[in-house]
Amino acid sequence: MIGIKSIASYIPPGRIDNVAQAAEFERDAAFVDAKLGTRTLSVKSDAEETSDLCVQAVQHLLAKNPALKPEAIEALIVVTQNGDAEGLPHTSAIAQDKLGLPKQIACFDVGLGCSGYVYGLAIAQGFMQAAGLRNAVLVTADPYSKIMDRSDRLTTLLFGDAATATWLGQQPQWVLTASSYGTDGAGAEYLVTKDGHFHMNGRQVFNFASLKIIPHMQEVLAKAGVDFAEVDAICLHQGSAAIVDAIAKRLGEHGDKVLKDMFGAGNTVSSSIPLLLEHYVLDSDYQQVLMSGFGVGLSWASGLLSRV
Amino acid sequence: MIGIKSIASYIPPGRIDNVAQAAEFERDAAFVDAKLGTRTLSVKSDAEETSDLCVQAVQHLLAKNPALKPEAIEALIVVTQNGDAEGLPHTSAIAQDKLGLPKQIACFDVGLGCSGYVYGLAIAQGFMQAAGLRNAVLVTADPYSKIMDRSDRLTTLLFGDAATATWLGQQPQWVLTASSYGTDGAGAEYLVTKDGHFHMNGRQVFNFASLKIIPHMQEVLAKAGVDFAEVDAICLHQGSAAIVDAIAKRLGEHGDKVLKDMFGAGNTVSSSIPLLLEHYVLDSDYQQVLMSGFGVGLSWASGLLSRV
Repeated sequence: MIGIKSIASYIPPGRIDNVAQAAEFERDAAFVDAKLGTRTLSVKSDAEETSDLCVQAVQHLLAKNPALKPEAIEALIVVTQNGDAEGLPHTSAIAQDKLGLPKQIACFDVGLGCSGYVYGLAIAQGFMQAAGLRNAVLVTADPYSKIMDRSDRLTTLLFGDAATATWLGQQPQWVLTASSYGTDGAGAEYLVTKDGHFHMNGRQVFNFASLKIIPHMQEVLAKAGVDFAEVDAICLHQGSAAIVDAIAKRLGEHGDKVLKDMFGAGNTVSSSIPLLLEHYVLDSDYQQVLMSGFGVGLSWASGLLSRV
Repeated sequence: MIGIKSIASYIPPGRIDNVAQAAEFERDAAFVDAKLGTRTLSVKSDAEETSDLCVQAVQHLLAKNPALKPEAIEALIVVTQNGDAEGLPHTSAIAQDKLGLPKQIACFDVGLGCSGYVYGLAIAQGFMQAAGLRNAVLVTADPYSKIMDRSDRLTTLLFGDAATATWLGQQPQWVLTASSYGTDGAGAEYLVTKDGHFHMNGRQVFNFASLKIIPHMQEVLAKAGVDFAEVDAICLHQGSAAIVDAIAKRLGEHGDKVLKDMFGAGNTVSSSIPLLLEHYVLDSDYQQVLMSGFGVGLSWASGLLSRV
């Protein structure tokens, strides 16, 4: 059985004062707390490339897990839509070299945004089974600072840079019991990069997420034969405080299971769910944890993690 | 058991006269035939985006397979490093909308080049098993015409545009019996896009492929417990006539099993192997077919397809 053995992360030390930034757009600290959810945003240095964020996250994972030897890593999968190069080569190959990992390794990038971690778990686990691999590292690293227009109040207050690394292998602590996926390319224009800058129609994304995600999580629970009452915690993509709160409110009695933490970093795209798992779930007493990621595509993915 | 049920393709009708193009660089038709392997190169129209190539290939697949209903497609996976947008959204989501596929579908892009089809088979098959899906379509579409510098004789004579679509499902004709993967990011610079243009160090790529690929295919055969003598055909990535011939020559007695056809299109990146499978393998009497893709990354992937 393949599943999650450990998660580590890297949040670059650079910080943007989000209260000061919001003031430029005539928004106060109360707005920052209530709607955005983070008073600081993490930002990588100009010298750091996406692959460098990957390297940091993987090195943290290796430091945390002496049992995971670099030479035992048989696959390195990077979820990103903001890789090092213009399309090619893939960021995972660049990270393989920077990490000094063996050449007998499968490396590929998965082009997904905020739904990417749930997808990544199923892709990585499935690929490992199909290819007969024992140890893989799934990395999320999608630094939106590379595409941010700092004069765009609809986006500059929200996104932060981070990377996470998940060790997938045998005798795991957690397994993906069930998952479901959805795509609506008709909403592609709501989150898009054009001429080097990211554009978002926040209202459309908010409406889509607040309507779609709860029935989608229910679909996953039905597949797994697990009742909502048995779920211990819910890790939603931390798009903003507003969307997390809106979904929690709609969940009624189960709303208090929704975790909310942007780690002083902001919306870290595909890293937001694994950050929650690392800090609140892996060492907890939880038995059943729901996840749901949603955003660029439009794309959404929900999954149930069960303790082994 | 999940495997290949059908393959279809789309080669855009636009053609570049490669003999005329080679003459501009003082190369004759004999050079074109011996070293490049194609007297014409396919090129998409300016109006066609990567997702449009995907749409054409999937529509050809649907036309060929009345049993495959669009509403039964549960995953659409696109292998590309030259997608529609600048990183986001993913091309597979845009293609989902253009094809009118259901929203209850998993869509993601895989960022790989010439090794991408073998990877894609294992990723798609593994993801389907992990997510409990019955029907998926794996698309390759990596139009290098978008990044070609027509004044660069090292690249402009080689690459053509194409897309393929592979139906993966139950009761397949062919299954991926074994596969192996390799990555050497130290060679990332040998195939790279910079400032919108693709650059290649052909000598380095040639040397890497001519040394690595045969032992890598042998590794796959050892995993599968299949002897080279049992292999009926070998589908190498059609990088150029020179590299295909060089590997065939090194294969000695098995060299005549190497298929060679660039379909008047050129090096079609991740589409070259599925084009060979579509035209020479699927309806053949072959029982065991080796595949090996190699290129950007550097990345290589070899797999054995066995008839069910």
